Amino acid sequence: MEGISEATSNGQQTSSAQSKVITCKAAVVWAPGESFILEDVEVEPPHKMEVRIKILFASICHTDLSAWKGENELQRAFPRILGHEAAGVVESVGEGVEDMKEGDHVVPIFNGECGDCAYCHSEKTNLCNKFRVNPFKSVMVGDGRTRFSVVDRRNGERRPVYHFLNTSTFAEYTVVDFACVVKINPEAPLDKMCLLSCGISTGLGAAWNTADVTKGSSVAIFGLGAVGLAVAEGARLRGASQIIGVDINPDKFAKGREMGITDFVNPKECSKPANEGWGFTVVLGIHLSPRLLPLHPMELFDGRRIIGCVFGDFKGKSELPNIVDKCMKGEININLDGFITHELPFAEINKAFQLLDEGISLRCLLHL
Amino acid sequence: MEGISEATSNGQQTSSAQSKVITCKAAVVWAPGESFILEDVEVEPPHKMEVRIKILFASICHTDLSAWKGENELQRAFPRILGHEAAGVVESVGEGVEDMKEGDHVVPIFNGECGDCAYCHSEKTNLCNKFRVNPFKSVMVGDGRTRFSVVDRRNGERRPVYHFLNTSTFAEYTVVDFACVVKINPEAPLDKMCLLSCGISTGLGAAWNTADVTKGSSVAIFGLGAVGLAVAEGARLRGASQIIGVDINPDKFAKGREMGITDFVNPKECSKPANEGWGFTVVLGIHLSPRLLPLHPMELFDGRRIIGCVFGDFKGKSELPNIVDKCMKGEININLDGFITHELPFAEINKAFQLLDEGISLRCLLHL
Repeated sequence: MEGISEATSNGQQTSSAQSKVITCKAAVVWAPGESFILEDVEVEPPHKMEVRIKILFASICHTDLSAWKGENELQRAFPRILGHEAAGVVESVGEGVEDMKEGDHVVPIFNGECGDCAYCHSEKTNLCNKFRVNPFKSVMVGDGRTRFSVVDRRNGERRPVYHFLNTSTFAEYTVVDFACVVKINPEAPLDKMCLLSCGISTGLGAAWNTADVTKGSSVAIFGLGAVGLAVAEGARLRGASQIIGVDINPDKFAKGREMGITDFVNPKECSKPANEGWGFTVVLGIHLSPRLLPLHPMELFDGRRIIGCVFGDFKGKSELPNIVDKCMKGEININLDGFITHELPFAEINKAFQLLDEGISLRCLLHL
Repeated sequence: MEGISEATSNGQQTSSAQSKVITCKAAVVWAPGESFILEDVEVEPPHKMEVRIKILFASICHTDLSAWKGENELQRAFPRILGHEAAGVVESVGEGVEDMKEGDHVVPIFNGECGDCAYCHSEKTNLCNKFRVNPFKSVMVGDGRTRFSVVDRRNGERRPVYHFLNTSTFAEYTVVDFACVVKINPEAPLDKMCLLSCGISTGLGAAWNTADVTKGSSVAIFGLGAVGLAVAEGARLRGASQIIGVDINPDKFAKGREMGITDFVNPKECSKPANEGWGFTVVLGIHLSPRLLPLHPMELFDGRRIIGCVFGDFKGKSELPNIVDKCMKGEININLDGFITHELPFAEINKAFQLLDEGISLRCLLHL
């Protein structure tokens, strides 16, 4: 810990000559489930191959919610700056970063793409060897330290604040590896682009890349939160003829109908099992439960396939800019507005978490 | 039971006017694990949309072995004629069969293809709605009865003999639904074509269709029986650069090397886990164990995919004839000879089962 504290106060050692330590507001969680506290946090300049971003918009995803609650003990690390769905502007770049400069419009991505490893060169995965999503990681890849520090009110000592999912976006400024930042068309509205940073891309990509939904096909979606509705949006844009929404909360059905879901099933109201059938099942998101999948190999044999999917199988840096351009040209008509159900100032982040936890919001956009 | 017996003796009711009941030898299992007895069995003429085949060659697959042992109680049905990997000649066809006639060279397929249902029309599955593989099925689809009968020596009464996996090929003559018979090039050697009826096609197709192995890729194969070696053969033909054979029986390695496997792992000799990694896992074969897969959803999340595969994802009637033609023209060079480790007359079927059970044979070809 002392080593980390020392590093955090040694911002001047970094290679970004003009870049200085910034003191700004960040929402810090000190212990599982405790309210966020807007702290004055020191943010180091970006080190080699890192980027410091001024965050303008951030939204909240269920992965933030479960990390905040500390549901998985092995993933706990406090104090911490959560958040991974955001959009902003590059404030400064570290040594060696050539694909971005100050002022560029960017979205951070929790599942990085270095572009140079065997995994990034493979068409079969979007998991970079070095910068892939890792819910256990809480420090920077380069030196295993943090770029944030804060004064602990209990003893007056400065201490490091842990990173989250390669991004930590509930802060006015954050430091992110170059592999985890995507430069996008500067004409794109950053408030909506924020949604492409995680949840909506995950759902769209699951339908487009992973399941490869084709015209006229049937798609069932289990769980009608933002990611599930983004799957519906992806399926709709591919011309699926039947989109079945499954949720144990029937309050989700009205929004689902608005977003193009054609049929609804509430398992709590079903007295007998649905029909058997073959098909692809795509599993999305981070699952904290210690329970194993109740799956027998013969169930696979019968024509079923189970596939996990991270970030919609998109290679973020390679593919997101193109998606954004197509949205701007009207070639893809994603209903991003439909996902933004609430907007709040950054200072009301605790209220935003409550809205998500109670299943009231899809995405609450925080203005920083 | 009486109904079934009556039907079996009423062969003349079927539509195949010239076709008569045939009495021939068949290897009948009367109880789990008991020796096969070569019985004089009556084989009815083929009913509507059925085909009667004179079997010339049959080989033994592990699914026969586990059905013989009765490992899964729910799948037990005795007396029964097992066997599903074979080649032969059409003896007669039932009403309505237009794609085959007497004298055609054929291989039966346990996973049928009617060619006309929604599933057969879909590119996403090779499981026909009506004639797909079903290890619980023991009678014909058309009327729910058997086409075989035998005299029970214990009481002198004639009783039905159950079918197995749509095929029942351990018999000089068998009756099979048209959907479960593939007509092939008459110049192809039927002894080798027998292997394409199940195991070798399953392995080749798993590499070609399901995993879609590409040039230069790495493939690990767990279990180096005939199906595993066929996966290796498929991977070799696709240009995989590394083919890792995994088996707890190191006696399998010499044959594996001969069949193109480049590296070997015996898990019993490993003191630490192998490297983590992403990739496709293709699960093949019928699994009788009641144990579930010890799989956590997060393991899928980390870039792993589990896919079940039946008959190598081949649509048998549509695709096998083309594979056979390509083999004949030398466009595909499958080392079928390498799989035939033993040959025996039909009467020695019990010895053939022993060879497979003890892991000595890959494929023992029975000459009928």
